[in-house]
Amino acid sequence: MPRVITSSHEIQQTTLQLRASGKRIGLVPTMGALHEGHLSLVRAAKRECDVAIATIFVNPTQFGPREDFSKYPRTLENDLALLDSANCDLVFAPRPEEIYPPGFSTYIEPPAVAQPLEGVFRPDHFRGVCTVVLKLFNLVPSDIAYFGRKDYQQSLVIRHMARDLNLPIEINVCPIIREADGLALSSRNRYLSTDERQQSLALSVALNNATKAFAAGERTAAILSASMQETLQSAGIERIDYATVVDADTLEEMGQIQRPTVALIACYVGTTRLIDNVELSDK
Amino acid sequence: MPRVITSSHEIQQTTLQLRASGKRIGLVPTMGALHEGHLSLVRAAKRECDVAIATIFVNPTQFGPREDFSKYPRTLENDLALLDSANCDLVFAPRPEEIYPPGFSTYIEPPAVAQPLEGVFRPDHFRGVCTVVLKLFNLVPSDIAYFGRKDYQQSLVIRHMARDLNLPIEINVCPIIREADGLALSSRNRYLSTDERQQSLALSVALNNATKAFAAGERTAAILSASMQETLQSAGIERIDYATVVDADTLEEMGQIQRPTVALIACYVGTTRLIDNVELSDK
Repeated sequence: MPRVITSSHEIQQTTLQLRASGKRIGLVPTMGALHEGHLSLVRAAKRECDVAIATIFVNPTQFGPREDFSKYPRTLENDLALLDSANCDLVFAPRPEEIYPPGFSTYIEPPAVAQPLEGVFRPDHFRGVCTVVLKLFNLVPSDIAYFGRKDYQQSLVIRHMARDLNLPIEINVCPIIREADGLALSSRNRYLSTDERQQSLALSVALNNATKAFAAGERTAAILSASMQETLQSAGIERIDYATVVDADTLEEMGQIQRPTVALIACYVGTTRLIDNVELSDK
Repeated sequence: MPRVITSSHEIQQTTLQLRASGKRIGLVPTMGALHEGHLSLVRAAKRECDVAIATIFVNPTQFGPREDFSKYPRTLENDLALLDSANCDLVFAPRPEEIYPPGFSTYIEPPAVAQPLEGVFRPDHFRGVCTVVLKLFNLVPSDIAYFGRKDYQQSLVIRHMARDLNLPIEINVCPIIREADGLALSSRNRYLSTDERQQSLALSVALNNATKAFAAGERTAAILSASMQETLQSAGIERIDYATVVDADTLEEMGQIQRPTVALIACYVGTTRLIDNVELSDK
């Protein structure tokens, strides 16, 4: 089993000592409830660095007041076994008071790219994400940090934050890992009933259809977006936060697609909010 | 003359190489227009570290729209000569676009201690201070950063930010340096006319009187504050932002003084805003 550290001071000192001894550190920040998506990040860290450190912390500041913070799955024993199987070297699993002690009051005001999409539906989400990620970057000073592309906007937000604040760390964004039938892996998939699990396929089907239509020459963003929404609705998904095609760097809406573009979906399957995305490119 | 670096990439790489070679780095962030107060910080850095790095950057984001950003003194040649005299090793003097390139949009939301006093009269000041200081800490990754106690609230804000964000840097706050007649050194003192220079003595006189009254047993904060205000007004100072006695750690107001306490003044002498402070203690 990987060594588990729960103290901020200890993880910071341990990581600084590893770096001082010349080790390259790869950091994989997670909220636990690990799946193959997370493990792919650990494997990338092991491939590209000397030491892979995972963090497990269900970050309260990135959940809205009516979101699933209290019911978010906490599966530490299983997580540690999975991390062990991926040869993770070290795990930082702090308690909430360790990260947010009494008197804590400094936050990150996220970059502009945090404002659309998730920023509309989860207003303080990226403030919490940026704050905890910056803290983890300082607590576990690493050469490379690994994030999954499933949280597409999050990866942009973190890249922009790292650029704006001159963080001395490289951000690697790794491919989405999917079930055989197309569903993107997510810790929240375990909330789905059997029927909902079936319904959830509509997300990847909608994105696949958008990819095919784009490949066939469709360049009008609104047509691609409308088609995705129709696919979701036909599957019985009623609450769609967004299903849209936007600029891949700025997340700005566009009429005709002329630059790198991403199709993004956030919707509720039952009471479970799922997100997924695919990049549309001429390559 | 110390070596001057203007590129963010170059200062970050240079500093990281120095640290990798085992050097302890002392950082002195300044806005230039240097005086003996700044030089005392450089000397402390030289004493306690292997390499002293000063930064010179008039940070636009910490000035309000009606403040003195455009007229703030820029005296680079003289600053470099002074830094040379204090044996400063390296100077980072970026242009504004280097620190705030197009698209920059990530800021620090400062800790709670930023809200009273300066936070009331200069609403976005500490947001700008925290943002640039965090950027400088990342651009010039150092063992110790040195700040002057004259900016008392700033030093608290930076300490709290460093604690909240787990910044791997020590914050050293150094004593106020004063003219022989008591005026605290400030880059803005050069704005003062001969008459205003005389009038400005009221700040240190008011603080001295508070120190004496405290030593004589006065423990009612309101009496000490009222006395300071009276001293300033008697000297003809009309615009007093604050002259108050508050908790030295939280800056909260108090009735009877029972904890470490600081007396703080911010007021206008002519059109020049001056600040000064003194800690009141039983020692």
